[in-house]
Amino acid sequence: MAAAEAVHATYPPRLTAEQEQFLVSTIKDWTIQNGLTVRPPATFVSQDAVSKGVLGTNAPVTLFPSPFPRSSFEEARAVQKIYNKLYADITRDEKWLGEIIQELLDVDDFVSGLWKVHDAVKKEGYVQDLSLGLFRSDYMEHTPAGSENPSLKQVEFNTISSSFGGLSSRVAALHSELLSFPPGQPINYPSHPLLDGRVPPKNTAVETLSAGLAAAHSAYGPSKSSPSLPLCIIFVVQEGERNIFDQLALSSRLSNFHKIPVFRLNTTDILDLTSIPGSNSSRPLIYTPPHAPSTSFEATTVYLRGFYAPTDYTSERDWAARLQLERSAAIKCPTVLNQLSGCKKIQQVLADPNREDHLSRFLSPGDSDTADKLRRTFAPQYDLHENGRGRELALNVETAASHVLKPQREGGGNNIYKTAIPGFLRSIPEKDWKSWVLMELIQPPSEAKNVALRSDGAVISGNVVSELGIFGTILWSSDGRILHNEEGGWLMRTKAKESDEGGVAAGFSSLDSVILY
Amino acid sequence: MAAAEAVHATYPPRLTAEQEQFLVSTIKDWTIQNGLTVRPPATFVSQDAVSKGVLGTNAPVTLFPSPFPRSSFEEARAVQKIYNKLYADITRDEKWLGEIIQELLDVDDFVSGLWKVHDAVKKEGYVQDLSLGLFRSDYMEHTPAGSENPSLKQVEFNTISSSFGGLSSRVAALHSELLSFPPGQPINYPSHPLLDGRVPPKNTAVETLSAGLAAAHSAYGPSKSSPSLPLCIIFVVQEGERNIFDQLALSSRLSNFHKIPVFRLNTTDILDLTSIPGSNSSRPLIYTPPHAPSTSFEATTVYLRGFYAPTDYTSERDWAARLQLERSAAIKCPTVLNQLSGCKKIQQVLADPNREDHLSRFLSPGDSDTADKLRRTFAPQYDLHENGRGRELALNVETAASHVLKPQREGGGNNIYKTAIPGFLRSIPEKDWKSWVLMELIQPPSEAKNVALRSDGAVISGNVVSELGIFGTILWSSDGRILHNEEGGWLMRTKAKESDEGGVAAGFSSLDSVILY
Repeated sequence: MAAAEAVHATYPPRLTAEQEQFLVSTIKDWTIQNGLTVRPPATFVSQDAVSKGVLGTNAPVTLFPSPFPRSSFEEARAVQKIYNKLYADITRDEKWLGEIIQELLDVDDFVSGLWKVHDAVKKEGYVQDLSLGLFRSDYMEHTPAGSENPSLKQVEFNTISSSFGGLSSRVAALHSELLSFPPGQPINYPSHPLLDGRVPPKNTAVETLSAGLAAAHSAYGPSKSSPSLPLCIIFVVQEGERNIFDQLALSSRLSNFHKIPVFRLNTTDILDLTSIPGSNSSRPLIYTPPHAPSTSFEATTVYLRGFYAPTDYTSERDWAARLQLERSAAIKCPTVLNQLSGCKKIQQVLADPNREDHLSRFLSPGDSDTADKLRRTFAPQYDLHENGRGRELALNVETAASHVLKPQREGGGNNIYKTAIPGFLRSIPEKDWKSWVLMELIQPPSEAKNVALRSDGAVISGNVVSELGIFGTILWSSDGRILHNEEGGWLMRTKAKESDEGGVAAGFSSLDSVILY
Repeated sequence: MAAAEAVHATYPPRLTAEQEQFLVSTIKDWTIQNGLTVRPPATFVSQDAVSKGVLGTNAPVTLFPSPFPRSSFEEARAVQKIYNKLYADITRDEKWLGEIIQELLDVDDFVSGLWKVHDAVKKEGYVQDLSLGLFRSDYMEHTPAGSENPSLKQVEFNTISSSFGGLSSRVAALHSELLSFPPGQPINYPSHPLLDGRVPPKNTAVETLSAGLAAAHSAYGPSKSSPSLPLCIIFVVQEGERNIFDQLALSSRLSNFHKIPVFRLNTTDILDLTSIPGSNSSRPLIYTPPHAPSTSFEATTVYLRGFYAPTDYTSERDWAARLQLERSAAIKCPTVLNQLSGCKKIQQVLADPNREDHLSRFLSPGDSDTADKLRRTFAPQYDLHENGRGRELALNVETAASHVLKPQREGGGNNIYKTAIPGFLRSIPEKDWKSWVLMELIQPPSEAKNVALRSDGAVISGNVVSELGIFGTILWSSDGRILHNEEGGWLMRTKAKESDEGGVAAGFSSLDSVILY
């Protein structure tokens, strides 16, 4: 049995009914007291009650922190600033990025729509040299049969709306408090070597992400309006966002600590509440709060927590709103190009072992050490071009069995797993195959288990799969200057494993923390 | 028009629909993010959803802080430590207290039940010399027609379960944030001279109340068990408490800042989970958490947030549980005698202008200055004894019109107002009259208005009546030594005024803060 399996074999320790009852009721109270919350869905609460907008419920959380190898955790942290810079450099390399994106334009309307926004602004000319990235690199522990030590494999790299920094920090605090109560003589968990004297590492996600936004705000410089206007940051959000408290953790920090005004703006309100004066060639983005119509603000930074998915664009008006943001002088987090750099296709091109070496293009010549560090985190990925290795692996049911087929965007419910891949591919037109990426499945510890409290109060336990995300922020200029590059804070997300399929359940996912071993 | 009326005539400033919408939605978010919450009632949420124990909703709060005269606020703070000591001294004077309580024994089962607990422990002998009081003295601004300056009048003095310190601190923080956003250029409220550059004073209720409990914990000394046990504080609470987050603000502060273990214990679980070893004449109160049955704790301090009302005692078993606490070595907050010192009858005896001077009994001889300070806060109060002034005022509909009739316990729904008093008295047996106290009505500013957000999301506005509570803590020994005497933190509670009755609505009450003028 490999080391990772040994760790998970006895973990988590079994709870008595009284222990479980105590942990569950304490977590139910702690989450509401400390804003580790989401707005409840209209499932166990009536739509009528939800519509009043006053209720909160606990975010889904695990009762136990999950064990994670310290070496892998440190490795993930150590490469984050390299990844930050890599994705900044990819974003700056419009030619290279464009060539890859071109392949997707005729099969992916969303990618195509985004590219058109970039094209339009490029024609007019960009007025803002700076870009801000709030990134999250997601990993799994890879423990293939027969291997002695687990390795760290990247699942995906998020360049837009990287979420859960706010709530994740609170889960670490929750587990730390539970593990250390009472002070000096903790009694909340059954005795277990992994829990003895250990607490999750400090989670600085809120501080780090907010500091990134504050750095952009500061780098924007003085108002470009005349007469000059007060400056602000705008959070672009989805209407009816249930995960609002994750976002508020960042805006509160910006307001209360950095003393920067933050306004929330629904994607659907952008064209009504913002404007770019036609007479000002600097194109400042002016925001006028409806509750204070006599005071206008100039947005230094636009932080997108909406507009990341096709469902955010229901009409041309939404695309016009995105264009308004993109052509403005506000620093975008992210720009359209930076969003596109997060396409699965980009990761595949970098990680495809059968293609030319694209990675080196973005690294200092001869810096094979950095290239190796990044490559160690890659799982093999392939496109499905004719006569290519990827197509061969995908269509053969035996080799498909160790792979996952992913579309360009966020994983979860859209992925096709294992032996279902050949049949799925044959069911869609071959011309659409190029919008899919084949990735070798990461093999997480098969014995990992945990217990989770859902938002509706249900407690479930069983085998789980966990993903570790590392947050990073980078502010760069189109000429390649890096003004700010930080790593800090993390997310552990744990999903119930569907035993029959072997895939990851799309529906259920809990916030977790880590115990390093 | 008196000064107070002038202040309230234009306050609060009128909100546009957009301003109200912004304030309401911001408060809905802020409250859940920051634990300014209660568990929702089973009115707008189904009993089924409530039973899962995961939902929170905003505590009812005002949109605006309420104006309050700075001189009255300072006066209330200045007398708090004097009041703390007065009620400690009353509690120590068992003979005097007992004589007054005797009058109530045959008409008030609850008072009688409490006295029996004291009697039983007295016979056995008390083993704990120290008592802890967490008090709240409640006041209204008194603005009778024709008076130039408002004065401060005490509504009641609470000696048990003085609540809302936890949530009240957060309301002050909420209003302060709303008033100062964005930094340097606030825009959330319409312009008004009372709000210009002002925020509520700092509210240290959580720090002050927790420090009182911590002082008792420390004064308890080492474990009285052998072998010695780890020490803890116990919060005795009601099952299904909706106001739990108010209490958790204190226990979190004790755990996280003072590093003192705190356990919550339902009144109904006391006899199952605590014990006093018969073999130990020091009578330590031993608590064994059901989730960690191998670890027992010794309670230094028992803080009652239950057992304050007759409804907390449904059987002899509940009285036995109260007796178990009272006879133990734990420092009680409060003792039975301290709870009884909060009877309305005590306040009436102190404040009755037609009775002998009882107040001086508890003050240093010749200290007329202190006596005057306290007396200035008294509203005239009377008992209803035969041929007395109180009976005369109560039975005459003309004089009754400026009075309120109060039972021994918490006000609100049980009070009889104004012209309803004579009829009410004639409807009950004359022998029961002695359980009632007649109090001259305090006349709060008649033009005071505010807007409140209820827990179900409804927004209501109109004329209001506000009460200011000042928190204080005192730890004393039966021999008169004062180990700790502090004042700190406050509560502003604002109720809708029922215009037809002129009385205070029992049903609806919001947490508020103050703007001092």
